[in-house]
This record gives sequence, structure tokens and C-alpha cells, in this order.
Amino acid sequence: MSVQSVNPRTGEAFGPVFEDSSPTQVDGAVGGAVASFPAWSTSSPSVRALALNAVADALDANIESLVEIADLETGLGKPRLTGEVGRTTFQIRQFADAITRGDFIAPHVDAAIDAPLPAGHPELLRTTVAIGPVVVFGASNFPFAFSVLGGDTASALAAGCTVVAKAHPAHPQTSQKVFEIASAKLPQGVLSLVHGVEAGKSLLHDHRITAGAFTGSRAGGRALFDLANKRDTPIPFYGELGSVNPVVELKGGATDSPAFATAYLDSLLLGNGQFCTNPSILFAPDGCTILPEIKSQILERDASVFLSKATKDLHDKNRAHLATLIDGEVFTGKNSSTSGFTSAPQIFVAPITSVKPEALTVEAFGPTGLVLTFNDVDELIATLHKMEGALTSSIFAPADDPDVIRVSKVLAGMSGRVSFNAWPTGVAVTAGQNHGGPYPASTSPLHTSVGLSAITRFLRPVTFQSFPKAIQSSVITNQEGK
Amino acid sequence: MSVQSVNPRTGEAFGPVFEDSSPTQVDGAVGGAVASFPAWSTSSPSVRALALNAVADALDANIESLVEIADLETGLGKPRLTGEVGRTTFQIRQFADAITRGDFIAPHVDAAIDAPLPAGHPELLRTTVAIGPVVVFGASNFPFAFSVLGGDTASALAAGCTVVAKAHPAHPQTSQKVFEIASAKLPQGVLSLVHGVEAGKSLLHDHRITAGAFTGSRAGGRALFDLANKRDTPIPFYGELGSVNPVVELKGGATDSPAFATAYLDSLLLGNGQFCTNPSILFAPDGCTILPEIKSQILERDASVFLSKATKDLHDKNRAHLATLIDGEVFTGKNSSTSGFTSAPQIFVAPITSVKPEALTVEAFGPTGLVLTFNDVDELIATLHKMEGALTSSIFAPADDPDVIRVSKVLAGMSGRVSFNAWPTGVAVTAGQNHGGPYPASTSPLHTSVGLSAITRFLRPVTFQSFPKAIQSSVITNQEGK
Repeated sequence: MSVQSVNPRTGEAFGPVFEDSSPTQVDGAVGGAVASFPAWSTSSPSVRALALNAVADALDANIESLVEIADLETGLGKPRLTGEVGRTTFQIRQFADAITRGDFIAPHVDAAIDAPLPAGHPELLRTTVAIGPVVVFGASNFPFAFSVLGGDTASALAAGCTVVAKAHPAHPQTSQKVFEIASAKLPQGVLSLVHGVEAGKSLLHDHRITAGAFTGSRAGGRALFDLANKRDTPIPFYGELGSVNPVVELKGGATDSPAFATAYLDSLLLGNGQFCTNPSILFAPDGCTILPEIKSQILERDASVFLSKATKDLHDKNRAHLATLIDGEVFTGKNSSTSGFTSAPQIFVAPITSVKPEALTVEAFGPTGLVLTFNDVDELIATLHKMEGALTSSIFAPADDPDVIRVSKVLAGMSGRVSFNAWPTGVAVTAGQNHGGPYPASTSPLHTSVGLSAITRFLRPVTFQSFPKAIQSSVITNQEGK
Repeated sequence: MSVQSVNPRTGEAFGPVFEDSSPTQVDGAVGGAVASFPAWSTSSPSVRALALNAVADALDANIESLVEIADLETGLGKPRLTGEVGRTTFQIRQFADAITRGDFIAPHVDAAIDAPLPAGHPELLRTTVAIGPVVVFGASNFPFAFSVLGGDTASALAAGCTVVAKAHPAHPQTSQKVFEIASAKLPQGVLSLVHGVEAGKSLLHDHRITAGAFTGSRAGGRALFDLANKRDTPIPFYGELGSVNPVVELKGGATDSPAFATAYLDSLLLGNGQFCTNPSILFAPDGCTILPEIKSQILERDASVFLSKATKDLHDKNRAHLATLIDGEVFTGKNSSTSGFTSAPQIFVAPITSVKPEALTVEAFGPTGLVLTFNDVDELIATLHKMEGALTSSIFAPADDPDVIRVSKVLAGMSGRVSFNAWPTGVAVTAGQNHGGPYPASTSPLHTSVGLSAITRFLRPVTFQSFPKAIQSSVITNQEGK
């Protein structure tokens, strides 16, 4: 098998053909990750930070050519892609700063207590070690921020892991270029790249690989999660499999209906709806004034290009399926394009009581929205309870509405991030971020794939009991590397 | 199916018959856990701490009757069981103290930054919520510390989870009694108990259960791990499946050979070898003076009683299997018992070069030890690399031995705790403890089942974006409960 870039604006293939990595190439990539692991994982954090910053600088220095090829492969547009490179290098530098400060890797020491059991104990020093060589699967919709040098790879490298990345077939040239720029700044073997579905599966199945990270579709992610767990030696698999994100407007939540409707459509159609944080379902009170606004504004919204034919086809299939589950009105935008992979934006509007429960679980990844109108808050809460885990949720309401707390409790119970009077798209890269949530938002609900805590996915605790400090410290960090 | 207590010292059944919990009873237990979850999980930490301390006090107040029944069911002896109750209540109180201090549950706040992307962001407050109702599987070898009110249950309750515990069939009366004492101090539904293998499986499969915790055999734990992962909605499963723990003596590591041999046998035979932290394999340098001591001292060691017939049978089978994998000498202790489930202590001694790799992975849970002699440290390290993940490991050596660091690196890379000049048995309950490790030591190598960090297994991060402080705080904690 092989893959070639396709311009989604024209549907035409272009550029070099990437053959799937052979078993020998996959073996070589893992071999390199294993061979380079001892030195990289015990290098001092400042050494790894220096390398990460050099990678970030090199990516920034190549931003124009990176954006150019990514735009041809994904159709996401140069402004968005330029911003995404900036986000990617910002994120790499943040991880470098975090390990330099000692975040997440600072040891905890319990001094010895000379007392009878159970209170007495020897000295215990709890610290962390890198989990081992890991595999990272690139995502289609973020060719930089969730791909070869995205948050998964950057956090794994910062933790001291070595990484074999699997390129996403929607942007092989971008992946290859990012890899070449980044790997030149890293020790041999610390970062490798493979192409091809089978190569990815082989990686995850290799007994030398100790963890996997993935951002992508539910079907693909679940298949990989199952592979990781069926191994003789199962390994952690951090999958972000997508999300149906609820946004709730309580009465009075939208003080300016036209602006609210515009903001809703902007969030829904951002990146042609190809964000896992899009406001999939808007719950609005019966008779609210935003509905007529949404209905009229959607008619003026034009189609954008999908990332790939596969993305468009899956979206169209899910939209058609949603249509069978919803008994309501449909409002459709424009599609003025004459070529490439596009579909007109579309919004379904229906009373909450008419919707089949399955409609609450279908993610139509693309320019499709669902607005459900409700009569009372109990009805709303009962419907929210029928939804699956979500990456994010929002509530729009006056702060003194007595229902805010109970609705927010339900949202916090089902999602990884809850926003107040703010739209869910836009995931800041900070220490306090959480981009995860109950399945299927994440296969590992205790972890985030965005923000500094993402490092913890690749660090395993180890306790040193009664160790002389100098020995313990040399075991964890190669002092000569400093 | 049903179960009745068996006295392992006599082989005789005694006491009430416990019928396996029916599907209706299991459903009722989960229903209670679900119904009580919202109030318990949002109760203030001080409310939960008060309840946990009341549970600990009640168990302490009943220590004599608890120890009496546990001793009849497990044969572990009253001194050990008295110590174990003390450890159990100490641990419960430690978790209560931790949440009262705000450990693990204190929020992290990133103040809003008014700047262009990617640095600018709204206020983000990252905190944790209880993951939901959980199931805890009791262990055979710790009827208190790893059972109905053991570390798993105590940490889950502290986190705000509600718990359905599954009693271990080796000590149903102890389990029932602990449950009755503890549940009287907790709100209705917060803690339930079920009996029976099928009941346990149903629990783990119930879509309302959000996590599982287990300490026990590799086969049983793996089967439950697979169940948890095959669900439509997979859930975290924290299994501690046992361990083959390496202990390394480098040259000069044993300054007093008779005392070293005694300490080794004490650690190996503690609790009749039924500890997951036993020194399974001792690596000793060729020609060291401890070998003759071990060989002579083992002859004087007498058999102790196993926890159950099942434990003895599995041990005997594994010991026989080990014998086929080792080409060396065998030294056997005494067995002066005339009734009950016993086997004489036994130690295999062989050169490291003669051992089949499989022998490095067989855990003979009981009074069986393996001593492998090595010629040079490279040979030792190559053999350690063939072992699987371990809960714990030890190195005995002079601190200035140049090989200490590289051997310790290998031990840290394969185990959850490494001790210097100290035996692996005895797991202190402190903040710095780690009782876990790469599979099969743990199905979740990032987590510990002993020590304060055990709480984190049951806490899921949630980020609140742009939330008014008062609302956020009410969502997480029911202020009226304070």
C-alpha cells in the first residue's frame, strides 16, 4: 500500500508517493527508540528542554514552507495553519519550561520515622521515570498541533520517552517535513516516523512499545485501544476519540440574540466543523429569541472544504443518519463551490421530546449542528444524562439563575471541561487545561492531551526506599549529561 | 452457587453459608451506589473524613472479634491479623487527613491572560471530581488491608466515589463483618457488599460502574481487566496481579552471611510466602558465603498453613512447574503439620546460565524461593531484562560499588519500588509509597494501590473555564454539607 497527498479543494493527487513502511522499517524505528531510550530518559531535564526548544525554533524558522504544504494537503487555510504552527511551538516550549522547573518530575520525600508499625517506616522517595518508547498516531484535523510534533509527541519527549510517530495519510508531506526538521535537532533514534495503517498496528503490538497516544475517529481509536489491551503485556493507550459536546442556554443566557446566533455558528463552523470541541448540540429554551436568528443566519453561511474525501463521506453518512433520528426542521446554508470536497452547512432543530436517544451520540464531524428546544430544566437534565462522555460543554445563563448549579453539576459529571458563557472551541494550552473526559471523549478519563499535565501520561512513579541520595539521583538522571 | 468458610488449619468448613448474590441483589447494590453518589461525591471533604474516621474507630473497637474470625478463615495468626487491622484503620485515617488537607483535590488556577493566541486565554480552573460508583474486589491474602475496607475502598470513598465491594470467598465472614461495621457509619448506599464470582463479573460489566480495583492472581485479574476493556464503555481497571520480585546481592552486599540468610528466609517465608512483595528470586554472586548459610538454615524452617486449599494447590503446581525449568539443587525445609493445607518451604539454587527464561516469570505464591548465582554483572543485567514488570526489587551492595548505579537503573526500569540494602516485604503506608509497576505488577503502571496517591485513581480532572468562583465551588462541593 502507498499514499499520496490529495488537494481537497480540487480532489487531485499531487507530490511524492509514500510507500507504507515495511516491517523492517518499523522494526528499525522501534529499535532506534529502544536504543536511544536509556540516554534520553536519564538525560537531565535541561538537556531535553534545550533539544525541545531547538525543535520549536526550527519549526518556526520553516513556518512558511510548512504552512504552504499543509494548506495544499488539508485545505485548512494559511491563517489558521500559521496560527497552528505557533500553537505547536508554543506548546513544545511550554513542556520544555515545565521540565526545567521540575514540574511533575520533582520527587516527594517521606523522611524515615522511627516508630512502631504502621506509623514507622524507612525513608521513601517517590519520583517518576519515563514509561519507555511510545507510539503517537497523528490526527487529520490538526496537521501540526496533534500530529508528528504535536502535544502527544512533545509531552512524551519532555517526559524522557522516545517516540515513533505514525503519519496521518491526509497529510504525509507535512508529516514528513515536520519529522525531518525536528529529528535533525534530536539525538539519533529519539524520534522516528512511519507511514501506513499496518505499520501503525505493528508498532502498537510491538512488545518494546510501552504506551500509545491517538487523536482521531471513534472507530479507529477503539480498534487501536483494543489492540493495546489485548497484548500479552497490555499498555496504556491514550485515545481521544471525539465527542458530542452539549451547550446549554438557560433562559436569559443570550442577552443579544443576533450576536449569540453568530457566535454559535462561528463556533459550529470553525474549521468546517472539524474540531472535536465543536458545539454539537445546542439546548435552547422553548420560545427563545435566538432560534429565528440562527435559522436566518445559517442560510447565509457558505460551505468550506473538508480535510479529505474520507472526512466528507463519513460526515455526510452521519448527517444522513442523524436526519433519520430527528423529527424536526432542517435549515441549510449555501454551497457555492464547484470543485473539491464540500457540503453545505446544515442545522436540525427539534423539540427535545421528539429526539431519539441515539441522536445524542452521533458525532457528525463537519458543518452540522443540532438544536434541541426544551420546556423545563428537568427534561433537559434527563436528556443530558442520556448523552455519552464529552470533551467539553458550555452553559450560558445569568449567574444568578437558580438552575445554573444543578445543570453545571451534570455537565461537569459528563465532560472534561465546562465553560460558563463561553463557546467550547478554542482549547488554551495552559497548566490548568483539561482536554479529555469520560469515554468516548477519552479512553483514559484521568488524563488530558492538551496542557502541561499531558506529560503525566508518560511518567511512571517509582519509589526509592532507603537509597543514599547520591545513588538515587544518579539512577534517575545521568549527572554527566548536565 | 454458595460459599462457606473453611479453616485452613483443619480443612473443615464452618459457619454460615453465603449464597452468591442474585442479579437482583447486584442491581440493588449498584442502584444504591448510583443513588448515593451525587450527595457523597459533592459532600465537603470534611464530611467524608468524619465518616471515614468513624469507620476506622468502629473497626478498631471490634478488633478482637474481627481478628478471631479472620484467623479461623485464613490461618494467618492473631499477631499478624491484629497488626493488619491497625494498618487498615491507620490507612483509612490517612486518607481522611489527606482530603481534609486538600491533597489531590486542591484546584489549580490559571488567571486569564489578555494577549494574542497562543499565550492569551480565559481563566481556567482545573480541579477533580469523583469518577463515579466503583467496584472493589477483595484479596485473599489481606483480609483487612486489601479487602472490603482496604486501601482500594478507603481511597475510593475518600475521593468521593461510592463502592460496591465483592467479598473474597476465602474469608466471607470477615468480609461480612467488616462490611456491617463500616456501612453502619456511612450514608445508605455508599458501601455495599456482594458475594460470588458471577456477581463480581456482573458488577464490572454494569454500565453504571465507572472503575474497578483488584488485588489477586494474574489469571483472575487479567480476566477482569479484559472484561473492563471490552465493555461498550471501557472503564479504568486497577489490577495488582502479582509479581516476581528480584533481589540482587552484589559482591560485599552481605557483610554478615548468617544474618543475611536469616533475613532472606524471614522475608521469603513471611505470611507463608503469600505476599506479593516476597523476594521471589535472589541473585547472588558466585562463591558468596550466604549460600551455605541459606542451604543449612532452610532445613530448620517449618511449614505454615496456606490461606486456602486453592492457594496451596496453585502454589504446588507452580513449584512443580518451576522444578522443570531449573537445572540446579533443591533444598527443602520441614513439614511437621499433620492436618490442614501446608507444604514444606523449598529453595531452588542454580547458576544463572542454566535457568530457562520462563522460570523468571513464574510466581509460586507461597514458601518457594529461587536463588540464581551469577559470574559477572553483565550476565545479571541480561537476565533481569528477561523478567517481567515487578512490584518491588532490592539491591544489596556497598554504596561505593561502581555497579550499583547501573543495576539500580535496570531495577527502577522494571519495578515500582526499589530498596537499597533492605528487603522488599513491608509496604509502608505513606505519601511517598508506590505499590504498582509495569504489567503484570499492575494493569495501570501509572498508579499505586498503597499510599496516599492511591486516591488519584478515583479522581477525574475537570477544568472550569470562565466560571464565577461561587458557582464553580458550589458545583464541586455542596457547601450546605459543611
